[in-house]
Amino acid sequence: MSTGINPWPWPIPNLPESVWRRLPSRAEADALMAAARKTYGTPDGADIAAAAGTQALIQLLPYLAAPGPVAIVGPTYSEHALAWRNAGHPVIAIEHLDACPESAVHAVVVNPNNPDGRVADRASLLGIAAKLRDRGGWLVVDEAFADINPSISAVTLCPDWPVLILRSFGKFYGLAGLRLGFAVGASDMIGRIAAALGPWPCSGPALLIGTAALEDQPWADRTRDALQQQAGKLDDVLVQAGFAIAGGTPLFRLARHSHGLKLHAGLARQHIWCRSFDWADDLLRFGLPADDAGLDRLAVALRE
Amino acid sequence: MSTGINPWPWPIPNLPESVWRRLPSRAEADALMAAARKTYGTPDGADIAAAAGTQALIQLLPYLAAPGPVAIVGPTYSEHALAWRNAGHPVIAIEHLDACPESAVHAVVVNPNNPDGRVADRASLLGIAAKLRDRGGWLVVDEAFADINPSISAVTLCPDWPVLILRSFGKFYGLAGLRLGFAVGASDMIGRIAAALGPWPCSGPALLIGTAALEDQPWADRTRDALQQQAGKLDDVLVQAGFAIAGGTPLFRLARHSHGLKLHAGLARQHIWCRSFDWADDLLRFGLPADDAGLDRLAVALRE
Repeated sequence: MSTGINPWPWPIPNLPESVWRRLPSRAEADALMAAARKTYGTPDGADIAAAAGTQALIQLLPYLAAPGPVAIVGPTYSEHALAWRNAGHPVIAIEHLDACPESAVHAVVVNPNNPDGRVADRASLLGIAAKLRDRGGWLVVDEAFADINPSISAVTLCPDWPVLILRSFGKFYGLAGLRLGFAVGASDMIGRIAAALGPWPCSGPALLIGTAALEDQPWADRTRDALQQQAGKLDDVLVQAGFAIAGGTPLFRLARHSHGLKLHAGLARQHIWCRSFDWADDLLRFGLPADDAGLDRLAVALRE
Repeated sequence: MSTGINPWPWPIPNLPESVWRRLPSRAEADALMAAARKTYGTPDGADIAAAAGTQALIQLLPYLAAPGPVAIVGPTYSEHALAWRNAGHPVIAIEHLDACPESAVHAVVVNPNNPDGRVADRASLLGIAAKLRDRGGWLVVDEAFADINPSISAVTLCPDWPVLILRSFGKFYGLAGLRLGFAVGASDMIGRIAAALGPWPCSGPALLIGTAALEDQPWADRTRDALQQQAGKLDDVLVQAGFAIAGGTPLFRLARHSHGLKLHAGLARQHIWCRSFDWADDLLRFGLPADDAGLDRLAVALRE
């Protein structure tokens, strides 16, 4: 329960031996791109690149971006700041996109945000994109948890603005070990990313499974509903135990309790893992239990 | 037959579902590193990093290397020059390591070389490594085809010199679709590479399969013998057809024929693919057929 990964993965079919043996083909990569374009609503004038996980893109972007500071809306997924800093960019922590200082050349926002589920509004995204364009910078929108509510996506901004959308495959499809993620952006930006990634960035299984899963719209619709329902049940358990729901997405819940750290330790003793944060003693993040037994186990453990 | 991939892959066992579902664990990554250290003879003071294929490392290194020209021993695998040029380094083509000009800050040698199988001698490697150290540069030794004869490896130079060894998993183990490759070098260099790769660069299946395969020494020994034998049979077929063997490794053969391009076209018409080169009309590169039937088919096709 310490992750935000769907506990009900898209069912992997038997794989032909050839996907392991030979290098992934151009046709396989093209099929994945076509499926991803459709699923992520990539508009004309925008393009898409696939990598071995969104993390690989988070690592790469700071090396390709113009020099200069990056403003990161937080608290959020900490790997963004690490990667930009590691590549030599000063990092400015901001609380809202609207607070982005003039010194920032780039900005990063996780949308919806991890762990609080905050959604940046479109006017803010557009406003900051316009400013960063004038500075020669990029707006990176990490939509790792947007599959639950695709209408959140800022993808329509891509052709006209220096906006890079990151989409994670592994979380919503429950296949984090596969390593597959995407960047969507204006064609020239994606061209630079694709050139830096080079040939065969994704495994043969990732291309085959990714294509089939992204094409499976009925599974995605059912899964969205099921995750919403399970998140509601998890909220009930947490509220019963004295938590207040502080945010989240249907893949994880952020919950507040004045004895948060004590409860975190107590759950760990019972081998139930949730996420705590060094910037808040009273907040815990819970991933979804896979079934009612998991919900019951959490409820019992929280009563100990 | 256009690739240099072992046609007899290491046999993949059934994979537990969890390798697809969850993020690869630290323990799994550590197990892979331990197996790779042993297989590649990584000395004390050197370290190792894994990526989603050697190609991912070829793409990354030019972004981490100090600015300045790179000398590349060629003709060779063309992706090295593309990646360095793409990251802004001037590329100087040289014919031998000993011809490396003083203006070069970095050097790349594929050892044994693809496609001619040339092996750089240790004195040349050490000599250039010493010069590049004084210039703040790196010597990249791409040992993609060194598994056949591990004594070629320059890995013992790593702790004392700015030498980065690249080892490809997919070619010798016949699992190119898995995407797994390694960099070996001094601990500080590998630390920088690992930081730039970030967490989870390899898939769960790559960690599990890579670990088990690298630990399977009996398979590696048998496979080396079998590839040597098959390469000998392929040579016989090529010589019978009027080719002269110009080099190669047991994973591919480089063969010379005054009508090389014509034969290449003739084989393609019979759906047999080999590699031709824009820098030599009379050279073709052949991968190993998987069996005697494949050898016979080639022999017949070459008589057409």
